[in-house]
Parts: sequence; structure tokens; C-alpha cells
Amino acid sequence: MASLLPEGFEYAGVKCGIKASPKDDFAMIACRRGATAAGVYTQNLVYAAPVEWDRQHTPSGDVRVIAVNSGNANACTGERGLADARQMAGLAAQSIGFSASQALVMSTGIIGEFLPMDRIAEGARLAASRLKSDEASFQAAAEAIMTTDSFPKTVRRRFTVGDREIAIAGMAKGAGMIGPRMATMLSVLITDAALTPQDAQAALRAAVEMTFNCISVEGHMSTNDTVLLLASGAACKEPLAGGPLAEFTESLTDACTELAKMIPNDGEGSTHLIEISVHGTKDFESARRIAKTIAESALVKTAITGCDPNWGRIVSAAGYAGVPFDPAKVDLAVNGYPLYRQGAPLHFDAAAVSRSMKTNRDTLIELRVGSDPGECRYWTSDLTMEYIRINADYRT
Amino acid sequence: MASLLPEGFEYAGVKCGIKASPKDDFAMIACRRGATAAGVYTQNLVYAAPVEWDRQHTPSGDVRVIAVNSGNANACTGERGLADARQMAGLAAQSIGFSASQALVMSTGIIGEFLPMDRIAEGARLAASRLKSDEASFQAAAEAIMTTDSFPKTVRRRFTVGDREIAIAGMAKGAGMIGPRMATMLSVLITDAALTPQDAQAALRAAVEMTFNCISVEGHMSTNDTVLLLASGAACKEPLAGGPLAEFTESLTDACTELAKMIPNDGEGSTHLIEISVHGTKDFESARRIAKTIAESALVKTAITGCDPNWGRIVSAAGYAGVPFDPAKVDLAVNGYPLYRQGAPLHFDAAAVSRSMKTNRDTLIELRVGSDPGECRYWTSDLTMEYIRINADYRT
Repeated sequence: MASLLPEGFEYAGVKCGIKASPKDDFAMIACRRGATAAGVYTQNLVYAAPVEWDRQHTPSGDVRVIAVNSGNANACTGERGLADARQMAGLAAQSIGFSASQALVMSTGIIGEFLPMDRIAEGARLAASRLKSDEASFQAAAEAIMTTDSFPKTVRRRFTVGDREIAIAGMAKGAGMIGPRMATMLSVLITDAALTPQDAQAALRAAVEMTFNCISVEGHMSTNDTVLLLASGAACKEPLAGGPLAEFTESLTDACTELAKMIPNDGEGSTHLIEISVHGTKDFESARRIAKTIAESALVKTAITGCDPNWGRIVSAAGYAGVPFDPAKVDLAVNGYPLYRQGAPLHFDAAAVSRSMKTNRDTLIELRVGSDPGECRYWTSDLTMEYIRINADYRT
Repeated sequence: MASLLPEGFEYAGVKCGIKASPKDDFAMIACRRGATAAGVYTQNLVYAAPVEWDRQHTPSGDVRVIAVNSGNANACTGERGLADARQMAGLAAQSIGFSASQALVMSTGIIGEFLPMDRIAEGARLAASRLKSDEASFQAAAEAIMTTDSFPKTVRRRFTVGDREIAIAGMAKGAGMIGPRMATMLSVLITDAALTPQDAQAALRAAVEMTFNCISVEGHMSTNDTVLLLASGAACKEPLAGGPLAEFTESLTDACTELAKMIPNDGEGSTHLIEISVHGTKDFESARRIAKTIAESALVKTAITGCDPNWGRIVSAAGYAGVPFDPAKVDLAVNGYPLYRQGAPLHFDAAAVSRSMKTNRDTLIELRVGSDPGECRYWTSDLTMEYIRINADYRT
């Protein structure tokens, strides 16, 4: 069977000793032929050194490797942190015969501690010696970037774009913002499509907007969030353009959706993956703002933890999102059961709705606030005692 | 000893049977001589019927009574809810010989159910028969407006304003947005100062801005939030103006601060009252936005629950508040211990800081983000397993 992975890439996941645990903590994703690269980053003013490095080096027409360490975020580390990120890029690139400016870096883990550069050097050396293009190596890389994740998050898809078959694969880590000091959402997408740097950047930005930017666990924005795209071009002669480029963006969005949903689904302590679908606003951004406000209400989250179809909490959260709408035009359904219509509560079988929430890990909230065409899907996790235990107790 | 309560008011708290529990559920605060009245209300688009009624009737130069019921919020009840609020105002006013437009109403409790008007009528009748100006009656009214509060929240203060001595007293209820379906922040301030309706409204708005609008439990904005001010004028011949009016606003702010802090201090399941003091922004609003973002981070709250001086969570929350600042100019102290200076972590005795958090219910976070004059104090509660238990389990 042909591999589902895109052509032109090699992977490795190794242990270099940043984490105290026996788990792998260093990954490399290489494209020796040279890839087009794009990146989308955290909007936090307090951002980490690797974010600064990657921002300066994307979009790019010539990236040969991404190096990722877990166990240390290299965040809030000032000038020395930036020098360390640069050196990490150099070590990774040189290990396969290239130079620092051809490497991107990602870090995740503890905030406010300096990267152990001797271990990073060891990681780059080891990973370079083990680079392979097979499934097992891809999986090993996906595992090496985990922190508090309970499962590795990967996607492998094939699409037809114009008259070509292309592959998109991706990996991500993150269980919300939870973990030692602070965890992070990192993701790498790879494809064998050919793209110009500008098109790669535009496609990634569009895909992230509707996927990774539509998830939350508790809404705390990390210092390190990074999504990178590498396009090897191995499956195309020329960069995609026109219709096929639009199809590629759609395919990339599909792959990112699959990957992004895994993050709140692995939200620490979570017992439900909540999809919030908002309709009827003037645009996508208004719908997202309502969805995000609902997603971040502790009262909505705990109602779902308790399998309680508490429409009052959902409707009132929408009301303070800062998006104008007419309360008399609001419809709400949970798991397909209509609870509220045209601004008034419906009689419904609360026990049946509650049962559907108990028997499904997935909860679907559908809210309509008007008849305009704007809409958004947003994913979040519920809020449980286990979340509190993890985040209130980890140091004690 | 002279009463600390302002002159010109009478109070009652009674049980009329809205709540299933044996607790009182109807309060009246009357000013038969007629009071100047001002109101500040929830910004939620989905607001309750009593909010609509009071908005239409404040500011006013002639309010004779405020009627409050607990156990039912009269929210999301449409046209009938509005008719019920109007009728409740009429019943309260008529019980002491006035008309509906001279009464304000407040409701708190379950969302989406109609007010039991026979019980409201009984409440108005009973309360009117028990109105008294003594401390015990004031306390009874403060208790009758409680829902999930664990203690009644009152303040009694005397101030010198110009050459007069005036009294300000107040009551509030709320333990965040938690409770049966949804609880609410309600507060009534009364004074024997004389104020014009416009000055009363301006003074109340200014006071609320820095007090009740600077608290949160989990950040879920209610449908019913209302703060009312009644000024009987019994201590003055003429309405306050100029310097004395400014002094009155300051005194009112003091009284509101004392009352407002009681709400997060009673936040359900909370183990810490957190004061977040932000300095160095261009204005108050920027400082509040940063403070509110920190206050609403589940990761900050749970760190404090765990007595963990986790500066990374606090600094990174500030970074996504949407307020521009230079990360290299950030200073942070917790309970007086400097943890972070000019954008870099300090060496500190983590065990000592943690101990100070364990032995004090009050936690003080002081954050400076620059050298501009803007600042804000904000109060919130921490986030505990008990909060989750209360809000995930109340229906099951």
C-alpha cells in the first residue's frame, strides 16, 4: 500500500534529555530538497523566542528542516532565549548540511527557563542520524512533541487538486494551555503540493482562521502557539494556482479541522468535546466572537459537564459577546433537540436531552441569532474537577 | 447610639413563597417622602424584564419604593414578563399608597419561568405591613434578596460632605453568576444626601465603574445585574453641588468598593479573594482590560487555588488582553514579593510566597506594564473543585 504521507519529507523523534521523564523530547521534520514554508503564530504580546525566529523566516521558499523540542518553551527568556533559538536552528540545519536560516524551530514546555543547549545539540545530532520517510518515523516525531497530551495528534489525507493527487499530513500537540507551567499548541502540516511562499502563507492563514483559531480549552492564549506548513512540491511540476490552489486551501482546511478538533477533545480532564455552531450573523468574525464567548463561559462548560441542557447559560453568554443581535430572533438546539425558539423557551424533554449528553462525548450546540449569512463552527472542551486538580495541584 | 442608616427609609424582608426553601424571598426598601433615584444595569443584550422597567424609570426625582424578589429572575419571559414587572411595581407602590411609576423592581433566581404574581402580591402586602426604619429591618431586607450567597452583604457608612454629615448604606447579593440556573448581582445604595436625578445618575455611574464593574467570579455576565441608588435628601436642604457633590461621589465609591468586594469573596467554592492591581497603562480602561483578562484566566485562578506563585500564567494572560504594552517593561509582585522585573523572572523564595498564599485568604497581584498613569483595581475569586461541583451538579 502506498504511504499516505506526502513525498519529500523525513522524520525523527528522539530523546535528548530535556524532559525528566523517559519520553522523547526532540523531533525533526526535514525536506532536503527544500520546501516552501508558511507560519501562523500566537497573537500574545508576550511571545517566545522560537516564535520570533520563525516569524522572521516565514514565508520562505527554502526551508530544509523544522526542529521541535518539548519540555522547555524558551519563553520569557529575553535576549539569551533568542540567541538559543537561533543556535537551535543552526544545530538542526547543520546536522543535515544546511544553514540556520533554512531551519524553523518550535519549543513547548516550561516558561522562564533557558534551553539546555548541550541537550539540544545532542537532539539534533541524534535526530539527523535517524531521519526516515516512513510512517513509524512520522509517528515518532508526533510523539516527541507531546507534553501533557494523552495521545499523539496526526492527520494523513490525500486529495485531488485540479488533475493531480496530492497528500497533506500533519501533527499537532496541545491539551489546552495546561501542563508544566504552560503547554502550547504547536502544529506542523506538510504537503507534496508545490506552492509559492505567498500562496502557502495565504492558504495556511485561511485554514488556521477556521480551524486552530476556532478552538479553545479555557481560552488562555499561549506564548508559543505556532502552526507551520511545509510544501515539498514533490507531487507537482509547477506551483498550484487558480482553481487547484483554491481546492488545495479547502483540503488544507479539512486536514486542519481534523487535527484542531483533537486538541479540545484531549483538553485536560475533559469529558465532552463541544461543537458550537453559530449562524445568522453578519459575518464569520461576529459568529466566532459569539461562539468563543459561549465556549469560554465556565457556566456553559460546567452545565455540559453535568449533562444539563441549561439554555439560559448559553443564551445569556451569547448576549454579552459584544455582537449586536435581536434577542427575539434567537433559536437554540442542543444535540438536535430544539430548546429555545424566537427568543422564548420551548417545552422539551429535559431528561432525554440530558441522556443524549450522557451517552455522547460529542455535544453539539446550534445557535441562530438572525438571518444574515455569517456562521462559524467552534470547538471546546468542558470543565471538570479533574481540570482543577491538574492545574491547581501540579506544583504542590 | 445613633443609627448608621440614612434617614428617610424603611425596610422589610418577608417570605411570600417563591423559593421552595423556608428562606425569605421578598424585600422592600421604601422612601415615603420620595427619593431621587439612579440605576446602572447589565450590558447583556439578553436582559430581564425588571431591568427594562427600571431603565425606563431612572433617573427619577420621585421614587417611593424598590421591591425585590429572589427565587425567580423574570428573565427570558418576553411580553408577559414585562407585564409582570409592571404589575409588581404597581403592587409594591399601591401597598403604601403610590403608583407603579414611583416603584422600581428587581428580580433574581431562575431564568425562563414566569413570576408567580399571587405570591408577589402577597409579598407586597406583607412587606408593606412590616416596613420599619431600624437596623433589624434593613438586615431582613438584605437577607431576603439572597440566593446562593453564604452571607448577607451590607455596608453602613457616614461621611462628611461639605459641612454636612451624610449616611450611605447599601446591600448587595451575588456569589458570581452561580446558583439555580443563574444568580445575579443586585445592589441597592441609599443615602440621606439630596441629589438631583442627573447628579445621582452620574455619581452612581462613576462609582459603579470602579467597583461593581471591577469584579468577577467567572466572567459570565448576568441578564439581571442592577445597581440602584436612592437619595432621600433627609440630611440636606438643597441638592449637593460642586465640591460636596464630588466628595459624595467619592464616598459612594468607597461604600460601593466595600460592598462589591464581598461578592467575589463569597464566590461559590472560592478559597481566595484575589485583588489585581494593574498600573502604568494609558488609562483606566486599558488597566481594567488587563486586570479582567487576568481575573478570568482559569489558569491564573487555579494557580492561586493551588497557592502557586505562577508568574508565567499571569504575565501571559496580560499579553493577550488586547492592550498594547512593552513586555520588557513588565514588573510583577504577588503578596508583596517581586517575581518578575523589566520583562525577566527574578530569583525568589517560591516556598515563602506559596506559604503567604496558603495563610491569607486575600491574594494581591500587582502588575506594572509601563510608566503611564492609568491604573485599576479588580477583584475576583479563585476556581476550585467545589465551584465545578456546584455548577455541574445542581440539577442532577
